[in-house]
Amino acid sequence: MVSNTGLIFKKVPVASPVIGAHFSIETREFDLAAEPPEGCFIVKNIYLSFDPYQRGCMREPDAATWAPPFMPGHPLICGAVSTVLKSTVPGFQSGDLVWGMFGAEEYFLVPPFLIPMARKLDNPLGLDPILYTGALGTSGLSAYASLYEFGKPEKGQTIYISAASGGVGQIVGQLAKMEGLTVIGSVGSDEKLDFIVGELGFDAAFNYKKESVADALQRLAPGGLDIYYDNVGGETLDAALAAMKDFGRIIGCGMISQYNLPQEEKYGLKNMMNLFLKRLTLQGFIISDPEFVGKYAVDFFTKMSVWLKDGKIKTKESVTVGIENAAMCYLGMFTGDNFGKTVLKIADLK
Amino acid sequence: MVSNTGLIFKKVPVASPVIGAHFSIETREFDLAAEPPEGCFIVKNIYLSFDPYQRGCMREPDAATWAPPFMPGHPLICGAVSTVLKSTVPGFQSGDLVWGMFGAEEYFLVPPFLIPMARKLDNPLGLDPILYTGALGTSGLSAYASLYEFGKPEKGQTIYISAASGGVGQIVGQLAKMEGLTVIGSVGSDEKLDFIVGELGFDAAFNYKKESVADALQRLAPGGLDIYYDNVGGETLDAALAAMKDFGRIIGCGMISQYNLPQEEKYGLKNMMNLFLKRLTLQGFIISDPEFVGKYAVDFFTKMSVWLKDGKIKTKESVTVGIENAAMCYLGMFTGDNFGKTVLKIADLK
Repeated sequence: MVSNTGLIFKKVPVASPVIGAHFSIETREFDLAAEPPEGCFIVKNIYLSFDPYQRGCMREPDAATWAPPFMPGHPLICGAVSTVLKSTVPGFQSGDLVWGMFGAEEYFLVPPFLIPMARKLDNPLGLDPILYTGALGTSGLSAYASLYEFGKPEKGQTIYISAASGGVGQIVGQLAKMEGLTVIGSVGSDEKLDFIVGELGFDAAFNYKKESVADALQRLAPGGLDIYYDNVGGETLDAALAAMKDFGRIIGCGMISQYNLPQEEKYGLKNMMNLFLKRLTLQGFIISDPEFVGKYAVDFFTKMSVWLKDGKIKTKESVTVGIENAAMCYLGMFTGDNFGKTVLKIADLK
Repeated sequence: MVSNTGLIFKKVPVASPVIGAHFSIETREFDLAAEPPEGCFIVKNIYLSFDPYQRGCMREPDAATWAPPFMPGHPLICGAVSTVLKSTVPGFQSGDLVWGMFGAEEYFLVPPFLIPMARKLDNPLGLDPILYTGALGTSGLSAYASLYEFGKPEKGQTIYISAASGGVGQIVGQLAKMEGLTVIGSVGSDEKLDFIVGELGFDAAFNYKKESVADALQRLAPGGLDIYYDNVGGETLDAALAAMKDFGRIIGCGMISQYNLPQEEKYGLKNMMNLFLKRLTLQGFIISDPEFVGKYAVDFFTKMSVWLKDGKIKTKESVTVGIENAAMCYLGMFTGDNFGKTVLKIADLK
């Protein structure tokens, strides 16, 4: 038996989850001596990926078909980079570095329903494995697949990206620059602003805590937006609706500003008449839908690996260390304390 | 000189236009003896079409590229069925029955910029010319082009249509029935409800003044909606967002519930998170965009003429008689007093 500390889901929150009430750090025992049941393997987690969509998994069990709800008493399920310790699954063996959807604890017995999402970490270019939590993982694939499938970016057009230093936003912005677009981003601190302009090459940016989105878009994109890449929803989406050009595209990746609000406190969008006045297309997506994985995954992975190797795409991860800090790491996504793709490191790479 | 009464635009309204303040019935003189200038023709209007989008033309002149704003001191511009009295335009001559975008007055000198939209009323099947204001005009083309282009209707799917007895809604519903969909409509009176179910063949309907849209959709479409055809916006759109199935399509044709509200009173949409949770597509359109006219007009006109002739598509027009009633006729669209496609008849067909 070993000690196994994890971030355990307790109860569905109405607003923001509270440590102790809705999730908590708990230490249990894990039997490392036992063989895993048929069709399972045991991992030791190294990097855990926290992503805003996980707030949506903190819900009552229901019929919705996207990411399944978290189960009270069980760890949150996260994207993870991990080492296989013991396996009864063909193709996975002790010592393999893998990525997949695993429980947010030090040791995790991967059940059969999560096995199909697990992959051996194929890393021919010798990239830092942490990238598989972000730029080479679902954040990067989200950015790539949705920008091309729905954004239809064309040289000379203008795109605005909210939460632009986050896991998805930082990749969307750099892809759009490679396509020759004018790229505008919004962030919540001047440090993040300097990063996306100075390091990532965004053409312009603003700090939404210092200037209204409507004013900033008027200032930075007086000719209007061809594409709005929405990671935040709410008032930002409303301002973008008003700033779109005719035939503009809005890509709905996420709405982090709204996740922790009860229904009665959610922002009410007032500019939706632009939908037909400007003949807009609003398109939402979930990256785990098979159409994306099937259509884009190979192409994405091949190209992104090279771009990362060559430094054509840069990344920034917000790394918190220690499973005991898991809840704070998760909450930091929503407060804006995290700067870059949120990652929790709970063990060293061998 | 003849007396020429019309509905004259006066001033941009903030809320609902008021007779006298924002538009008024005015009688002027018209010189029927004079020849029209080069490239113009004179019409005597028979049927005027009022459509909700015209509220959007009651605005300050601006850069928006869709239907141009109404000019203070000039008549509202309407779809119309009219007789050419005098013409200097090749292809149009005295006595021709035409349809086009003409001023809402008894006699109208059609200026060169409106000539390209005028058509001789090609009526080989001998249909009632009033149909060119609706089912054979922009209402019908709107319904047809947008349902097929964006709705992607498939047999067995469920569509919900708001303002279902209106000019566009009544056609969308019947087209969807022909495609084998389950068709649900909402209307504002029990008489209209009986009509769309009993006459038009809708599978189900509700009176939104008697039951909330959310409750009604739960009752009539517990399995959810594949398509929502939005003519009203506001709370109805919000309820539909919550009732959509995964991968559903929302077609934004209009939002009549919101047109007369100042910005601060507009309904705030709270259910937009369904955009990505359900991977929805929201698509707005303006039927005058060349892509629709070019792609669908011939096919639409050919098929719709036959369907109307054969009675496979039925129509209902709300006909008000007399130019002196033009403002009331327009306002009746917004109050719900009109039942069917709104038409003002101001002269007899020869």
